[in-house]
Amino acid sequence: MTASSLWFDHALLAQGWARGVRLTLADGRIAGIDTDVARGSEPAYGAAIPGLCNLHSHAFQRGMAGMAEVAGPEGDNFWTWREAMYLFVDRLTPDDNRAIAELAFAEMLEAGFTRVGEFHYLHNDLDGRPYADPAEMAQGIVAAAEATGIALTLLPVFYAHATFGGAPPKPGQRRFIHDVDGFARLLDASRAAVSGLPDAVVGAAPHSLRAVTPEELAAVAALTDGPLHIHAAEQEKEVEDCLAWSGARPVEWLLDNASVGARWCLVHATHMTPDETQRLAASGAVAGLCPVTEANLGDGVFPTQAYLRAGGALGVGTDSNVLIDAAAELRGVEYAQRLVHRARNVAAPAPGRSTGATLFNAALAGGAQALGAEAGLKVGAPADLVALDLDHPSLAGRAGDALLNAWIFACRESPVTAVWRRGRQVVEAGRHVARDAIVAGYRRTLARITA
Amino acid sequence: MTASSLWFDHALLAQGWARGVRLTLADGRIAGIDTDVARGSEPAYGAAIPGLCNLHSHAFQRGMAGMAEVAGPEGDNFWTWREAMYLFVDRLTPDDNRAIAELAFAEMLEAGFTRVGEFHYLHNDLDGRPYADPAEMAQGIVAAAEATGIALTLLPVFYAHATFGGAPPKPGQRRFIHDVDGFARLLDASRAAVSGLPDAVVGAAPHSLRAVTPEELAAVAALTDGPLHIHAAEQEKEVEDCLAWSGARPVEWLLDNASVGARWCLVHATHMTPDETQRLAASGAVAGLCPVTEANLGDGVFPTQAYLRAGGALGVGTDSNVLIDAAAELRGVEYAQRLVHRARNVAAPAPGRSTGATLFNAALAGGAQALGAEAGLKVGAPADLVALDLDHPSLAGRAGDALLNAWIFACRESPVTAVWRRGRQVVEAGRHVARDAIVAGYRRTLARITA
Repeated sequence: MTASSLWFDHALLAQGWARGVRLTLADGRIAGIDTDVARGSEPAYGAAIPGLCNLHSHAFQRGMAGMAEVAGPEGDNFWTWREAMYLFVDRLTPDDNRAIAELAFAEMLEAGFTRVGEFHYLHNDLDGRPYADPAEMAQGIVAAAEATGIALTLLPVFYAHATFGGAPPKPGQRRFIHDVDGFARLLDASRAAVSGLPDAVVGAAPHSLRAVTPEELAAVAALTDGPLHIHAAEQEKEVEDCLAWSGARPVEWLLDNASVGARWCLVHATHMTPDETQRLAASGAVAGLCPVTEANLGDGVFPTQAYLRAGGALGVGTDSNVLIDAAAELRGVEYAQRLVHRARNVAAPAPGRSTGATLFNAALAGGAQALGAEAGLKVGAPADLVALDLDHPSLAGRAGDALLNAWIFACRESPVTAVWRRGRQVVEAGRHVARDAIVAGYRRTLARITA
Repeated sequence: MTASSLWFDHALLAQGWARGVRLTLADGRIAGIDTDVARGSEPAYGAAIPGLCNLHSHAFQRGMAGMAEVAGPEGDNFWTWREAMYLFVDRLTPDDNRAIAELAFAEMLEAGFTRVGEFHYLHNDLDGRPYADPAEMAQGIVAAAEATGIALTLLPVFYAHATFGGAPPKPGQRRFIHDVDGFARLLDASRAAVSGLPDAVVGAAPHSLRAVTPEELAAVAALTDGPLHIHAAEQEKEVEDCLAWSGARPVEWLLDNASVGARWCLVHATHMTPDETQRLAASGAVAGLCPVTEANLGDGVFPTQAYLRAGGALGVGTDSNVLIDAAAELRGVEYAQRLVHRARNVAAPAPGRSTGATLFNAALAGGAQALGAEAGLKVGAPADLVALDLDHPSLAGRAGDALLNAWIFACRESPVTAVWRRGRQVVEAGRHVARDAIVAGYRRTLARITA
């Protein structure tokens, strides 16, 4: 159902919180905003907040969520998890990829994300050969975005090498691999694939300094004017290997050699020196934090306090999709800081400021920048809205920024009751409108893969 | 509704996982267990697991969940949070206390906890005088347990001093304070208060080494044969102050001076040396971990890996109740270890072992020990059951311990659909059977307090 107007008790507008807010919608955008008005005959909800951008997802990994929480033969870490992920990749057909992405994207909408940045590296067939359509697997991502209604920033991944110095790829990586010419064809095919989506964005993602040479990085960046995303400094071993290869750390190398600026998103950037932290903050790039996955994979803790004090931009992503929850990502950013600094309200910049609102607003702006999208509720902006239920006990008696604190820090059961994308309601009573069919398709895929 | 028999696709019995399980119930206990049987006419559910014990709760703090996530005037930490908590305490009537506890206990049941250890320190009236019934406030806890159906281990708190060395209490602590004789009367009144609950346990809780002198600690421990709980080493300042007072650290002091053994629960025990960790593990006491609250309050990270390797017993608690979620507590124990050790599956003791099941089984046994209760599904045990929904997408294709991993690590939306206490169903379709009335009462209380 596409709404023409909606009324909210509270709304977080671009200029701040307002009460008694009527949003008039037209052509998927906010055509008018009235505040301090009584409820009329239009549908009424609790508190409207803008949908967040999920700036880093590997949708297919949703299908292995929880499967790797078993001890392996020789001690577990990020790299042993990666081997388990490669085995999962070995079984995924294009249909599986689409079915899993549909579930992941539906869950993202239910969690309060209205756009996903899909860092998409699963390109080739089961034998490692390109499909007839090089964007065959990307078509599944596009189809899942269309089926669920989530906005898509597609980030086709360039992946060519097993590690620093241009090492040849491993067999488990065969589905990811391109040369630059092949990647240029993939980008063209990806742009064609999204042409039916009204507000899709296509960028590019050189996977990591492990997987691309400096020459390839420059060539890939030159192929797009859109967002550029790269994994950087997620693991200490990666930092050590980068130092051995170049004498510089990954973030340092990128800042020195890759014209890192506003269209860049450095995903994770976990392991930085204080100097790297200051320089990244000053670069205008977005740090893409994925605290749920970074905890699950044992990555480490991003220096959020120093980075925010230096004015750095950040956003959040669900990455491995082991648990898809916008509130948990924002909470995770703060809680890791509290454990490191043995302090509270670390992200809040000044007395009286709300930690939850600080993180929400940072992730709203940084996520939108990283995905080439607009942020915030204002006239002319996309009607990408999330409604929080004021009847949720954790929101009882709360208003303004306290609503964000309640949602982010104090809810087991989600208060997200309704979500609209371009004015169309895609979540009702906390559930995606197509959830039953999407879950059925997902269960069929999982039954096949795990048989 | 009290069931006479229930059927489950899977059940985690005391001896391990079984399929096709019929539980016959009588007088609130499991009277019979049949496995590998087809579903008959009895109600059928997905996977049965035993309810966990929530070994550490301050129920009333649920009412301030999310309120303290705003920066104060001079930097925030545990101690500034405590001042905010004292201000909240200043407003709570007995009715408020009961209404908030009802919500907290209902949410605990919805989250998979079937018994709560209420570390209850709010005893005196708003002016700091004893109520006519010294257990007036405890009556509210008992009433909330009765209204919700949760099993109660009531831990009346002895609190006499502001800090080490017998310092007089502060005005904000006036509602907590007793001398030993007054506490003995409180214990008697508390035992009378729970007499109507079929399986309540009463222990005692000397609050912390800050709040009790060595003489008082010994006197309080002598007043009960039940569980003894104490906060220990939650904060670094507490460790420093304890060293200044006694030359020993809090856990060290307790191990040296307090006959710490199987009926003891040391809550938090966050800041320990390797030697303290080994000694606590060998003592037979339970470490009471509250990772959600410990992150929220910036406490620090318990040395779980070393403690488990030394054979230590642990359980989990929701403490401040800022977010009530059994899965999040178990996940939090593991994720903090992963961030510290930069490794995965840290809790799992050997190759092939499940991290989620390791933590679940440890918390099941340790929580029951700490609360003076029975643990596990076997003939004769209380019918305290939690059903996980196999239709939840995160549980698709999972069996056995993988169900626990899916629940603990991979679910935003809870798969807990049904909960029984002593055979009576208290949670249906994920919601407490009295939720609407309980939430209405809670909202009235919050409206009054925040007016």
